[in-house]
Amino acid sequence: MLQTIFWSVGVSRFALSDRLAFSKSKTNALVASLLDVGLLEETGLQDSTGGRRAETVQISTRLGVLIGVDLGATSLEVAILQPNMQVLARHTEPADVRAGPGVVLARVRALMGQLLQQCKLASKQVIGIGIGVPGPVDFESGQLVNPPLMPAWDSFSVRDYFKEEYAAPVFVDNDVNLMALGELWRLQHSLQNFLVIKVGTGIGCGIVCHGEVYRGANGSAGDVGHICVDTEGPRCHCGNLGCVEAMAAGPAIARMATQAAQDGQSPALAASLQERGTLTPEDVGQASRNGDAAANAIIQQVGAKIGQMLASVVNFFNPSHVFIGGGITRMGPLFLASVRQSVYQRSLALSTRHLEIQYTPLAEQAGLVGAGVLAMQETLKTWKGRP
Amino acid sequence: MLQTIFWSVGVSRFALSDRLAFSKSKTNALVASLLDVGLLEETGLQDSTGGRRAETVQISTRLGVLIGVDLGATSLEVAILQPNMQVLARHTEPADVRAGPGVVLARVRALMGQLLQQCKLASKQVIGIGIGVPGPVDFESGQLVNPPLMPAWDSFSVRDYFKEEYAAPVFVDNDVNLMALGELWRLQHSLQNFLVIKVGTGIGCGIVCHGEVYRGANGSAGDVGHICVDTEGPRCHCGNLGCVEAMAAGPAIARMATQAAQDGQSPALAASLQERGTLTPEDVGQASRNGDAAANAIIQQVGAKIGQMLASVVNFFNPSHVFIGGGITRMGPLFLASVRQSVYQRSLALSTRHLEIQYTPLAEQAGLVGAGVLAMQETLKTWKGRP
Repeated sequence: MLQTIFWSVGVSRFALSDRLAFSKSKTNALVASLLDVGLLEETGLQDSTGGRRAETVQISTRLGVLIGVDLGATSLEVAILQPNMQVLARHTEPADVRAGPGVVLARVRALMGQLLQQCKLASKQVIGIGIGVPGPVDFESGQLVNPPLMPAWDSFSVRDYFKEEYAAPVFVDNDVNLMALGELWRLQHSLQNFLVIKVGTGIGCGIVCHGEVYRGANGSAGDVGHICVDTEGPRCHCGNLGCVEAMAAGPAIARMATQAAQDGQSPALAASLQERGTLTPEDVGQASRNGDAAANAIIQQVGAKIGQMLASVVNFFNPSHVFIGGGITRMGPLFLASVRQSVYQRSLALSTRHLEIQYTPLAEQAGLVGAGVLAMQETLKTWKGRP
Repeated sequence: MLQTIFWSVGVSRFALSDRLAFSKSKTNALVASLLDVGLLEETGLQDSTGGRRAETVQISTRLGVLIGVDLGATSLEVAILQPNMQVLARHTEPADVRAGPGVVLARVRALMGQLLQQCKLASKQVIGIGIGVPGPVDFESGQLVNPPLMPAWDSFSVRDYFKEEYAAPVFVDNDVNLMALGELWRLQHSLQNFLVIKVGTGIGCGIVCHGEVYRGANGSAGDVGHICVDTEGPRCHCGNLGCVEAMAAGPAIARMATQAAQDGQSPALAASLQERGTLTPEDVGQASRNGDAAANAIIQQVGAKIGQMLASVVNFFNPSHVFIGGGITRMGPLFLASVRQSVYQRSLALSTRHLEIQYTPLAEQAGLVGAGVLAMQETLKTWKGRP
C-alpha cells in the first residue's frame, strides 16, 4: 500500500482505491490509520474529474530524507531528496571515475555530509541511499561486475562503504537503469514498455518491460554500446570492430570535432578548441545551431549510427517510446531528427508506427530522481515501522 | 488456482501450496472441492523429497480437449490435445501460406474435423483453440497486421473464421511466441528470461521476460529477421541491405546449397539436387555429416550470421538461455557450434558467462504445445464453470 502511494504522486484517495483494488471505505480507513501513525501526510486539495475536490496523500516528509547519487564516467552528482522526490539540496562536479572507488567515494561521502548540514539534517534522518554507477551491477550484492569504464571498481561493494556512517540501507544500480526507473516513476506506470538510451562516455540502455525495470539474467541487460553498426568500423576497446560506442559516443564525437577543427573545415569548432583545448557534444551542437556545415555533418553521422543500433533494438523489443539522455542531448534537435530518420528507415513499419523517440523528459535529473526512487522503493519494501 | 495447477504439471499438493502461497490445509480443501466438481483429477502417486508419497493433481481430462494449430510458411500442423498437453491425434502436411486464408483455413477446418472424428469426439467437446501464424498478430483482436510472408492475410480475423463451427474460444498468436509459451510451460517458469529463435522461411524470436511472453507495444516484438548483419549485404524483401533473414534463413541456405551443387563444389549436394530438384537445410546437414566441405562452409557462414544477430540481441537482453528451433535445426551440431562461436566472440563477457545456446528442447512440438497452452491458459481465464 505504501509502495502504491509512493508510485501515485498527486493521485486522489478515490483514484487510489482503484489502483489498490480496495473498496473506497477500506482505502479511506487504511489511509486514515497511516496518517495517524505519521507514515502519510495530506498534500492539499485536487480537482477530480467529477468537479468535487478530493484530497491527495503522500509518504510523509517527516519520515526523513533520501540521498541520491549519480556517478557518471566524468562527473558526480549528489542530492538530498524528500520522499516525494523533491530535491532539497544538490551538488554536481566533474570527476574521473577511473580514479577508483577510494578517491571517488570519499568525495561523495564528504558531499553527502555537506549537503545534509546545509539542510540542517543529521545522518540518522536519512532513511535510504540510492547510487547509480556507470557499469554493470549485480543488483543483489550491490557489487560492480567487470565494469569496462571503471576497472578499479570490479567486485567493489559500494554498499559496504557507507555502512559505518549511515544506518540507512544503500542500494546500487546501473546509472541507465536508474534513469529508466526515474522516468517510470514520473510516468506513474502509464507506459509499460519503453527504453532509455544514455549516450555519454559510453552508450547504455535502461529497459522497462511489463511495467518494471528489466535487468537481465546477470544484470547486464541494456548493454547496447557494443552492438556492431559497421563490420569494417574502427576497433573498440572491447576488441571488436565497429561497435556503436566506438563510433558515436562522447570520445568519438570529440575526435571527429577536433579533426574538423584542425582540418580547417569548421571555423566555429576551431575557435572553441583554441579557447578551451577540448571539444564536447555541446560545442558541436552550438556550432550546428550557428549553421556550421561540418558540425551538422558530424551530428548526422552520429545520429545515423545511433539510429542504426536503435533500429535493431526496436525490431527486437518493439517499445512504445525511446527516451535519449546523457551529454549527447546537448547536440540539439538535428541529432534527434537524424536518429529518427535512421530508425524509421531500418525498422519494420509495425514497430515504428506508434514509436516515439524523444529526449528524456526528466533531462539531467533522470539519474538522480531514479536514485531517489530506488532508495525509497527498496526502503519501503523492508520498512519496519521506524519513526 | 486452476491456472497455477495447469502450469504445475506433476507437482504435488504439498508443493502446490507453496506455489499458491496458501496453507497446506487451505490448499487441500480447495483441491478437494475442485476434485468434487470435476475440474481437477488425481494423477496417481509421486515420490516427494521426504520419502513420503504425495498425490498430484491436474486439470481434469474430462473437461474436454483443445485444438492446437501451427501454421508455418510452408507447412501446417493440427493436433487434438488433452488439458495436460498430451497429444491425442496429430496431422502435419506441406502447405503454402501465401495461398491465402480461404484456402489454408478450409484445409485446417477439414483436418480438425477428421482428427476429432478419429478420436471419437464432437466439436462441442472442444474447450479452446490455439492457432500460431507466421506473422505479427494483434493479440487482442486476433488479427494479423502487415504480415510480410503472407500479405493476403492482412487484417484477416482467423478467430472469426472458426466461430460458426466451434463454440470454444479461439486464440491467435505469432508462431514463435507460441514456441516460447510452449517452452515456458514445459519449464514451469523455472527460467524467467529466455529467447526462442525460429529459423525457417523467415527468422523470428519469442521473448520471455519476467516469466511471461513479451509481445511488445504493438505485438511485433521479436522481429529480429531484419536486423542488419552486413551493411554491404544483399537487398532483403523489406527494402534494406544485409538483413539476417536475407542472408541466413531457409531460402538463402537453399540458394547457397544450389550454387555449391551447380558449381561442382559439392558432389553430395549435386546428387541430392538431381534426385529431388530442390535443396533444404536438412540436405546441407546430411552432406556436412558425411564430411562435405562445401556444406560445412555454408553451415559455418549461416551460423556466423545468425550468431552476429544474436550477439546484438544478447547484449541488449541478457537472457539466460537461447533456444533455436525451426527447419534450421536439421543442419546439425556444427551449426550450433558456429552460432555459439559467433555470439561468444561478439557479446560481452558478462552477458555470455552463463548463457546457454541450445536447440529447442520441445523440438518440432514446441509450436503445437504452445498453441495448446495458449488455448488452455486463455480458456481458464474466462472459465465460467462449464461442465
